[in-house]
Amino acid sequence: MSLLVTGSIGIDTVRTPYGVSEDCLGGSSVYFSMAASFFGPVRLVGVIGSDCPFDLAEVFAGRDVDLTGLEVREQSKTFRWEGSYQPDMDDRTTDRLELNVLAEAPPAVPAEYRDSEFVFLANTAPALQLELLGQIDSASFVAADTMDCWIRGHLDDLKRLLKKIDCLIINEEEARLLASELNLIKAADKVLDMGPGVIIIKKGESGSVMCNTDGDRFILPAYPAAEVKDPTGAGDSFAGALMGYLAQSGNTDFDLLKTAIAYGTVVASFAIADFSLSGLTSINRKDIDDRLKTLRKLTQF
Amino acid sequence: MSLLVTGSIGIDTVRTPYGVSEDCLGGSSVYFSMAASFFGPVRLVGVIGSDCPFDLAEVFAGRDVDLTGLEVREQSKTFRWEGSYQPDMDDRTTDRLELNVLAEAPPAVPAEYRDSEFVFLANTAPALQLELLGQIDSASFVAADTMDCWIRGHLDDLKRLLKKIDCLIINEEEARLLASELNLIKAADKVLDMGPGVIIIKKGESGSVMCNTDGDRFILPAYPAAEVKDPTGAGDSFAGALMGYLAQSGNTDFDLLKTAIAYGTVVASFAIADFSLSGLTSINRKDIDDRLKTLRKLTQF
Repeated sequence: MSLLVTGSIGIDTVRTPYGVSEDCLGGSSVYFSMAASFFGPVRLVGVIGSDCPFDLAEVFAGRDVDLTGLEVREQSKTFRWEGSYQPDMDDRTTDRLELNVLAEAPPAVPAEYRDSEFVFLANTAPALQLELLGQIDSASFVAADTMDCWIRGHLDDLKRLLKKIDCLIINEEEARLLASELNLIKAADKVLDMGPGVIIIKKGESGSVMCNTDGDRFILPAYPAAEVKDPTGAGDSFAGALMGYLAQSGNTDFDLLKTAIAYGTVVASFAIADFSLSGLTSINRKDIDDRLKTLRKLTQF
Repeated sequence: MSLLVTGSIGIDTVRTPYGVSEDCLGGSSVYFSMAASFFGPVRLVGVIGSDCPFDLAEVFAGRDVDLTGLEVREQSKTFRWEGSYQPDMDDRTTDRLELNVLAEAPPAVPAEYRDSEFVFLANTAPALQLELLGQIDSASFVAADTMDCWIRGHLDDLKRLLKKIDCLIINEEEARLLASELNLIKAADKVLDMGPGVIIIKKGESGSVMCNTDGDRFILPAYPAAEVKDPTGAGDSFAGALMGYLAQSGNTDFDLLKTAIAYGTVVASFAIADFSLSGLTSINRKDIDDRLKTLRKLTQF
């Protein structure tokens, strides 16, 4: 089934203990699309300025990523992010942030995308996520990400969004903040009370937890990656593989969601093994399926 | 097969966001023995002062815990620990520590315990752990715990101990410190190079990881406990159930170690649901087996 993603496209500069990657391609919709494209076609909605040095058609060459929804604004500048990772690779600081084109009106969803069945709204202002979602006719499964600044500063918009989506994919600090509850399981249940049928909580190196409104739960550790060079994009790669697998399957029952999380986990483990998109562009579907088997072996008793 | 534990018996005062438990029974060998007794007999080696207000025979009544190795020193005072947990229940601070009898010579291993086949050396000075282990004839599987102060201050003793044990059970900060390596998988491999055939790394709320010298690995999340009232003793309850299950099975192959870790995870989840030993004394083996089934369902895909 069709899968649409709305999110950022950015120029990243990333510092990790393993090196520096200057002015490389980044952004949530880029990582998401690359990860999802291993499973099936992806429709991308995003906006860049005329200064963007990357040819996205070339970046996604040979992959089924539809760029009809890519808007280039001549008078605007592309989103930029600079960040540094601490030696433990879990904490990061933002050294510089230029919203640029992301501070303007969001891109339009092309008419030919309006029938999209699976939709991922990557992290941005919840009012914009609502506006983007409003341009899609009747998606069957909508997932969204958010972050601490929207929870703190735009909670009313976020609560309206939560009533319109099927699945919220956030990290553990965000879940605790949104629910005002430290215990993660209780926090998950509180967020489910706000609207979504499913919540997936990303715990970085500690894996992920999924809960739904039927009381089903699933916990999966992260793949034990010995190589972690650049964690940027891990969460969006996770979401991309997860949504890609669901859209390919055309089904969202709980057992299928479990496998989708396992695929997300595996693809994220490849994404963080190298800088920018190199961890994803150097693998194929067989590498992913092989690592999924390994993950199963590592976690089953 | 026979199982012996050496470790502390203490009078604990514990403060958590859920309340205060003053002068309650604690200590590594107590939590360990209680947890292991669900699986089979346990031989306890420990020492208390004449001030100890607890009758351990009564505490373990109806359980197969052999107290021949319990020494009461008339002129000594019992070990005391006071600690506080932060709201996230993961970090704790020690508010008061009185080693008392633990600063004296260790208790003797009774002659009738010398044939013990499974041995757990709970956390204490590695020189003492070596001395205790020297009193056992030829154990088939020895596991030990340690902590940061021994890694920092008694590394030579600890390295001698590591060459004599089969399994090290430590937490993730300790593993990183011991290996001087932040990546946990690389740290595990470095510790294995120091001697033990197996390392089990406890990650608190994030579960555990096991690696062996054959390159086998296993990762299991923690049981998603909605009730966490007092995390004290979680690690020793984990080790107790793990070693109890292994001793009951009389086998330590990797698949059995996986199930042992699952049992440790489940019993630790009961231990933290109430203060002191109440989380363990209020359950039976069926509760444990039922929760093991739930854990399997929660983690398998």
